[in-house]
Amino acid sequence: MEDLKLGIDLGGTKILAVIADKNNNIIARAKAKTKFKLGPDAICEQMKKLSDEICSKAEISFDAISAIGIAVPSSIDPETGECLHAPNLGWKNQPIKKTLEKVFGREIYLQNDVNCGTYAEFRLGAASGFSNVVGYFVGTGLGGGIILNGKLVKGIRGSAGELGHEKICFGGRKCGCGARGCLEAYCSKTAFAKRLHKEIEKKKRKSVISKLIGKDADRLKSSSIARALEQEDKLVKEVVSEGFEALGVAIANITSILAPECIVIGGGVVEALGKQIMPMIWKGYEKNVFAINPDDVQIRLSKLGDDAVPLGAALNAEKKGDI
Amino acid sequence: MEDLKLGIDLGGTKILAVIADKNNNIIARAKAKTKFKLGPDAICEQMKKLSDEICSKAEISFDAISAIGIAVPSSIDPETGECLHAPNLGWKNQPIKKTLEKVFGREIYLQNDVNCGTYAEFRLGAASGFSNVVGYFVGTGLGGGIILNGKLVKGIRGSAGELGHEKICFGGRKCGCGARGCLEAYCSKTAFAKRLHKEIEKKKRKSVISKLIGKDADRLKSSSIARALEQEDKLVKEVVSEGFEALGVAIANITSILAPECIVIGGGVVEALGKQIMPMIWKGYEKNVFAINPDDVQIRLSKLGDDAVPLGAALNAEKKGDI
Repeated sequence: MEDLKLGIDLGGTKILAVIADKNNNIIARAKAKTKFKLGPDAICEQMKKLSDEICSKAEISFDAISAIGIAVPSSIDPETGECLHAPNLGWKNQPIKKTLEKVFGREIYLQNDVNCGTYAEFRLGAASGFSNVVGYFVGTGLGGGIILNGKLVKGIRGSAGELGHEKICFGGRKCGCGARGCLEAYCSKTAFAKRLHKEIEKKKRKSVISKLIGKDADRLKSSSIARALEQEDKLVKEVVSEGFEALGVAIANITSILAPECIVIGGGVVEALGKQIMPMIWKGYEKNVFAINPDDVQIRLSKLGDDAVPLGAALNAEKKGDI
Repeated sequence: MEDLKLGIDLGGTKILAVIADKNNNIIARAKAKTKFKLGPDAICEQMKKLSDEICSKAEISFDAISAIGIAVPSSIDPETGECLHAPNLGWKNQPIKKTLEKVFGREIYLQNDVNCGTYAEFRLGAASGFSNVVGYFVGTGLGGGIILNGKLVKGIRGSAGELGHEKICFGGRKCGCGARGCLEAYCSKTAFAKRLHKEIEKKKRKSVISKLIGKDADRLKSSSIARALEQEDKLVKEVVSEGFEALGVAIANITSILAPECIVIGGGVVEALGKQIMPMIWKGYEKNVFAINPDDVQIRLSKLGDDAVPLGAALNAEKKGDI
């Protein structure tokens, strides 16, 4: 086998790896829990170990891999390709590319995780066939990626596409970043957990997830939110609807700003909840869209699911970082 | 003289024309009041008459002009180059390009007025030397333009850059477009006039411009706002500060979305008020910016003033609409 590429999605809680062939078919997958507490060097070693594992799973030698890409929850310096700021991993200006290249003995291409996810959906998933695409990925936080004329918009210091920190309501809800009114403070697992906690603890409202809920998002699983919605839990429905309506407002905004052809919605929360979020998004979108017909823009759910990010990392490596 | 180009800025109240030479120096200017009520055909004739006037002013024959561009307050179909929707002129799908080409007997290139203004500032003005630029033009309304990798972002149906209708506060102040919380509902002459009218009429607050103020922006001149600020009028200062602080929030948003190198602020209100608006903008910007240092992005006032829009129209014609 030739032209195999390895893509790794380094997350705060888990690491996912895929190997794809030259037609971008995934031939093997592997995962591990991120050894977060051991620090960057140990995490780099862990990724190498996972790479060896996935190679033996695919019954290939490591040398058969021609490109290695890693998606990180960080902005990436467009000049050096180095990781700049990864708050979820506690890294700031951590020269992880250098460490990785020493550990792997090969050139490594880094890119922001949500940028990778959006790029994979644009090349191979829900947005394939379009040239101008914006991706929103809703998980613990909310991240985004922007493709214009088929190229990823990187921006100064690689910080374009930070769509979770767009203020849709200045002076509004407090966000983890310290500012107020960010989209992420309305539509993310963290936002849902905070809001549910407040309603249950302070306002004594009832919900089937009362026992599962703490202030932080770690204790609330996307699958629990999905189950509560299946059971028609009124409070959870209210909180989730409000969150995705806010995402709809942000989508109306991006159509006023860039008027892209296609919007892709993905991420852990979206994977768990599926298409029931579409009417919630549509509610916020339709009444706030300007100058175009709401149907002029395609709003689609992710097609690649968990594969989007590692696959995008592999595609980035294949293109030597020039996506 | 060779390679002369004509640029016309068709506004709801006035028409500005410039002729520029091959080095983009302006060699003549002319203006007229828009004969708004006479309808599109008469306005096209009026623009031809103004073109003849400016040519005789510059002592050249009309044939010496090699490119003609017109900036209109409308989205422009990227396929046909035709005017799609110009609410300030009351036009919808008005085939003005066809009419103009009949009247002028020449090829005419149309582009949105604020896109033209942003493009001129990027090529020749405050943002020259940068490749990624966003322009905000504050006048009766608020319009925007986006340049990425040196090219204008047009979007589907030419509707990118409608930055006045980004919701910075969903559910907030009512905008002329029917939605709520648009930037234009906070930062524009219309927004200032509405707000001042409310404070003076309903809350009986005092201001030096009490006599000048009606519900609509037409009665309030940018120069009156400037004079009130000079006289340290408390109410006007409050309203204007709040408006430009909101623009600062929108600028923080665009840095989270596109992370451009340079932001240009222009338009009639900005021309009249000058650099005193910068600390107001900075207040909203600084506390809402994410992932970059506030100083990483250059925020600059327009350099070309009233020439920006017609000059951009001329540059668009020179490039045969491919800007």
